Amino acid sequence: MIKTAIVGATGYTGSELVRLLYNHPDVSLNMITSESRKGEPFSAVHPHFEGLVDITLQGADAVLEEELDMVFLALPHGVSMEYVKQYEQAAFNIVDLSGDFRLSGPQVYESWYQKPHTFPSGFQGAVYGLPELHANAISKASLVANPGCYPTSAILGLAPLAHAGLIDPASIIIDAKSGITGAGIKAKPTTHYSNVNDNFKAYGLKSHRHTIEIQEQLGWLHHSELTVQFTPHLLPVDRGILSTIYAAPIKPVSEKQLKGLYADFYRHAPFVRLRKTPPTLKDVRGTNFCDIFITFDERTGRIITLSAIDNLVKGAAGQAMQNMNLQFGLPQDRGFVSLPLNP
Amino acid sequence: MIKTAIVGATGYTGSELVRLLYNHPDVSLNMITSESRKGEPFSAVHPHFEGLVDITLQGADAVLEEELDMVFLALPHGVSMEYVKQYEQAAFNIVDLSGDFRLSGPQVYESWYQKPHTFPSGFQGAVYGLPELHANAISKASLVANPGCYPTSAILGLAPLAHAGLIDPASIIIDAKSGITGAGIKAKPTTHYSNVNDNFKAYGLKSHRHTIEIQEQLGWLHHSELTVQFTPHLLPVDRGILSTIYAAPIKPVSEKQLKGLYADFYRHAPFVRLRKTPPTLKDVRGTNFCDIFITFDERTGRIITLSAIDNLVKGAAGQAMQNMNLQFGLPQDRGFVSLPLNP
Amino acid sequence: MIKTAIVGATGYTGSELVRLLYNHPDVSLNMITSESRKGEPFSAVHPHFEGLVDITLQGADAVLEEELDMVFLALPHGVSMEYVKQYEQAAFNIVDLSGDFRLSGPQVYESWYQKPHTFPSGFQGAVYGLPELHANAISKASLVANPGCYPTSAILGLAPLAHAGLIDPASIIIDAKSGITGAGIKAKPTTHYSNVNDNFKAYGLKSHRHTIEIQEQLGWLHHSELTVQFTPHLLPVDRGILSTIYAAPIKPVSEKQLKGLYADFYRHAPFVRLRKTPPTLKDVRGTNFCDIFITFDERTGRIITLSAIDNLVKGAAGQAMQNMNLQFGLPQDRGFVSLPLNP
Amino acid sequence: MIKTAIVGATGYTGSELVRLLYNHPDVSLNMITSESRKGEPFSAVHPHFEGLVDITLQGADAVLEEELDMVFLALPHGVSMEYVKQYEQAAFNIVDLSGDFRLSGPQVYESWYQKPHTFPSGFQGAVYGLPELHANAISKASLVANPGCYPTSAILGLAPLAHAGLIDPASIIIDAKSGITGAGIKAKPTTHYSNVNDNFKAYGLKSHRHTIEIQEQLGWLHHSELTVQFTPHLLPVDRGILSTIYAAPIKPVSEKQLKGLYADFYRHAPFVRLRKTPPTLKDVRGTNFCDIFITFDERTGRIITLSAIDNLVKGAAGQAMQNMNLQFGLPQDRGFVSLPLNP
Repeated sequence: MIKTAIVGATGYTGSELVRLLYNHPDVSLNMITSESRKGEPFSAVHPHFEGLVDITLQGADAVLEEELDMVFLALPHGVSMEYVKQYEQAAFNIVDLSGDFRLSGPQVYESWYQKPHTFPSGFQGAVYGLPELHANAISKASLVANPGCYPTSAILGLAPLAHAGLIDPASIIIDAKSGITGAGIKAKPTTHYSNVNDNFKAYGLKSHRHTIEIQEQLGWLHHSELTVQFTPHLLPVDRGILSTIYAAPIKPVSEKQLKGLYADFYRHAPFVRLRKTPPTLKDVRGTNFCDIFITFDERTGRIITLSAIDNLVKGAAGQAMQNMNLQFGLPQDRGFVSLPLNP
Repeated sequence: MIKTAIVGATGYTGSELVRLLYNHPDVSLNMITSESRKGEPFSAVHPHFEGLVDITLQGADAVLEEELDMVFLALPHGVSMEYVKQYEQAAFNIVDLSGDFRLSGPQVYESWYQKPHTFPSGFQGAVYGLPELHANAISKASLVANPGCYPTSAILGLAPLAHAGLIDPASIIIDAKSGITGAGIKAKPTTHYSNVNDNFKAYGLKSHRHTIEIQEQLGWLHHSELTVQFTPHLLPVDRGILSTIYAAPIKPVSEKQLKGLYADFYRHAPFVRLRKTPPTLKDVRGTNFCDIFITFDERTGRIITLSAIDNLVKGAAGQAMQNMNLQFGLPQDRGFVSLPLNP
Repeated sequence: MIKTAIVGATGYTGSELVRLLYNHPDVSLNMITSESRKGEPFSAVHPHFEGLVDITLQGADAVLEEELDMVFLALPHGVSMEYVKQYEQAAFNIVDLSGDFRLSGPQVYESWYQKPHTFPSGFQGAVYGLPELHANAISKASLVANPGCYPTSAILGLAPLAHAGLIDPASIIIDAKSGITGAGIKAKPTTHYSNVNDNFKAYGLKSHRHTIEIQEQLGWLHHSELTVQFTPHLLPVDRGILSTIYAAPIKPVSEKQLKGLYADFYRHAPFVRLRKTPPTLKDVRGTNFCDIFITFDERTGRIITLSAIDNLVKGAAGQAMQNMNLQFGLPQDRGFVSLPLNP
Repeated sequence: MIKTAIVGATGYTGSELVRLLYNHPDVSLNMITSESRKGEPFSAVHPHFEGLVDITLQGADAVLEEELDMVFLALPHGVSMEYVKQYEQAAFNIVDLSGDFRLSGPQVYESWYQKPHTFPSGFQGAVYGLPELHANAISKASLVANPGCYPTSAILGLAPLAHAGLIDPASIIIDAKSGITGAGIKAKPTTHYSNVNDNFKAYGLKSHRHTIEIQEQLGWLHHSELTVQFTPHLLPVDRGILSTIYAAPIKPVSEKQLKGLYADFYRHAPFVRLRKTPPTLKDVRGTNFCDIFITFDERTGRIITLSAIDNLVKGAAGQAMQNMNLQFGLPQDRGFVSLPLNP
């Protein structure tokens, strides 16, 4: 059994990790921590777990006192790096669900996150935890930086094209729409029901931090820098991201060729489903799937890709468990039992 | 392995059965039928199953040609009875998810369902499939009549009180609120998004068919007839029923006594959760739980019970699988892996 | 022109007052105040008014410096009473939208609101602002206590029965369901989108403050004390309250007789619509209507009443404008132009 | 008074026309027709009008028998052209809300609508009813073709750029998101609550009929053909369209310059609000506003425009009333009283 702890239990990623790990046959969930709710049962914070997961929340310092194999950090960026630093010598593996070690280094981080990075050397061992691109490196990494939700959706939607060098690197537009859980569990005007319900808006125009994450990974695939236009929007739904992606091919291309390219690129990816028709958010709700639909518009000469994930699963906790599986030499899909909850 | 077929695949209960049975370690899903979509893959009807369950839909006549252990009928009432009749001599067990065999006999059926019953003798072997009341009978039955969604919620909310003879049989009011999937997958004005979204209404005032189902079961527990006031409402949510139940005790009672009564009555019921605080619909979403909260209002002298289920799971497909488990001598909760999907 | 000020601009009742007063031909909106956003344009707080109402927010002390005819207090309870006290000698009329002067006196207030009342003598001149019951008194009052949203719905649903002495005063059950704006504009866990969306729950069981408000008004109509069971629930909708009301008649009654009783009682009430079928929330959205449907269940012997309002209009700002009309000798429906926004 | 008839009462545009015309001081609503519900009161079809608009529905042939000044056709495309033909000699003005006369001629129509056009000569007198572009022509037209909802949003978002010749005509991408009322009042799988709620999807990829409408109008402004990429999506909201529009300038441009260009272009447009921050759908709900936000992304070199309307008002019935005002020499905003219903 993989002895596991979750650091940070009050948010959505924490509770979603519990939901997923609960059914993993090789995992024992030994510890959940929360500084603000220490001493309370986990189910006092998330009452839907009453009678299921009533384990008492501990302080994060307890992590170093127990013999653990695996630690998930479900903390805000800026906070997470402190824990990674503190756990540097620890024997356990880490998946960090924050944005603290996703980028190529501290300078880029500081420029897009607008705050100093207090553990720059942590970047050296960190591997970007998108299994469809970096499975091999992840399997050897003790620190995995779990990707952002939008980048997961956008990168998987574009990876085969970037990898094949098929698209104009200045042509990429990612028009992304996310459910409200992406904004976190904290109550704020943005998450007030009446500001979200029956409503829709764009936000973070031109400057969202996930832009650089997408650029770096696609640039790595493309073997050259590229610039993406990324516009996030807020949907009146709980879960899910749908990215509508536009790109111009640099040479003539057919729809059939594109579908073949994607099928080949993802032939070993258990969680990528290449769909016959455009996916909806509920098609992936509660699951670790990334559903992709690709088409070519002959009239305009553009490739259009639709990519759908559940932001809390493939965009966070599920991907983290997938990374853990790789770190421990298990099949990527080991322990995943949820089918789409639709409707 | 229990060789299983689902008759009727196009509705929500059919697809929900597939979702649940998929993870049952002792079940093989050998056949799914649909008269209207025969020959198509199951995933053509429910595209979120693409790549997961692509089995070809057959006609219902195929059921008798295969060696099966278990058949679920996910059909409308009035249609289901024809299949039960046709399968009378078959060796397999049946759980019928329609309303055709839930009541005490054909006369009551005809009076509340306003249509003739074409297989009256079917009532003789049929057992009402509410495991919390009839586990023993279910385990011996070859035909189980799976309860209605509202009755499941209402009966479980009141059963300990009725069984203890603690309440005035004329005082019961069940004010129930259901998600829209209870109205079925068929597109009609009632289910049009813009009639439901940001809206709420009562319907079926004074005459809903589930009234008699509730009365019969509570009357059986109470050892005398009783009359319930049942008012269903339509919520702008996909899944879930919350029943707010009012009843007057016939003698002084304390909150502590009530909680003890419920704890005792449900001590062997793996899916009933007695909650410390009023449950919400999302606390049970996707699961087979029935969450119950009971309290006593000293000011008014009334007992108030809140009972929450997922209408597609504990109110339909989940309860059906629970019944199957009993019929095959398995633990009631065998094969259930879904935790509440919240948010 | 009635020179008008709104004290308290940041909440929903404040912005709804602006929306309604904007089209009133006899009203000039001279001033809007906010302590927290003083100096900003009103449309900075409520951006949907950009270009429509950009008036600068002032501090509440400005109210006494200007010649005004009418002041609306759109403040939380506990705060409002301080302003009423301060404005005691002012020449303008007041409609107070808080709960501070709705009850019969300070003792009742303190017992249900759990806080001291700092202006007990204010109760003397205050009139309960439900025009369908107290039009005459309102027209002479300088201080009108605008009713609570739930009480408006519940009292209007029951008034003819209570007034006719037709119902058992111990039999009343009000099962009420409200949209989320009733919980206010402040971001808190209760109003977080993901706690509300696709969800439903009861709250305030046995102890909600609106209970006493309902009891006092119905008791006044009934010429004797009565006890109501009041259970509020939280709907995943923005606006609207539907109350499902149960009561037992003390003597035989027919449906026809009930409909006649209501038609007669409300013959001069321009905002009460007696409906042929059960109303939905969207039937009244954005309007000052209270839609009522009444029926008698011969099987159970109970009267069932359904009463629907928009909690921000008839349950708050619209009723306040209706009261103002009475205070200034105008027709109750003067200046109301909104028809139901449906869908 | 303008004596007015609405032909086609059962859909959303019909009921929305009634809601808006109700408050127009110069309009008398003399007739509403419906072939399927002839003889019933209008409020039987739309019960929220009970007591407000109970006028009896007539057959469309009655239109020619009464002396009318104005007829609105709220009919499906393909049906509408038959009525326009029939009314060719009539003295009244027509606003046709269908797509039948929006395009430049029958060939284009037949190619994008995939059906023959049975009244080709009707195109000659028809004027495209977007008042912000064609006010003068509309004021002289007896047949106005009311624009589609998506085109209204897209064209208004891009018109100043196209008119100024500032953008690369091959660079335009319109990623549009619409509420469900855009799909009509008919119950079908697409509009089933559980297919829409908590869900999101793209549809009509590469081939939506509104594409050509946008292209023709922008091409007219741009004095040359241009190709737009148009991708519609379906939002879980009732009303509203938000278009996120990307275009590349052909020469260096500053944000300030863009804002000046828009302010100038729309200086006489009472319903276009140039917003300081990105608009949300609820900012315009129930109103005839088109809210526009424009910005320039220096990093990518693209102009981004956000354009929000209520699809039933500015996208249909409100624009129709605005056109009628022009046809009768009234101010464009005459009779409009609805402010945004938010929340």
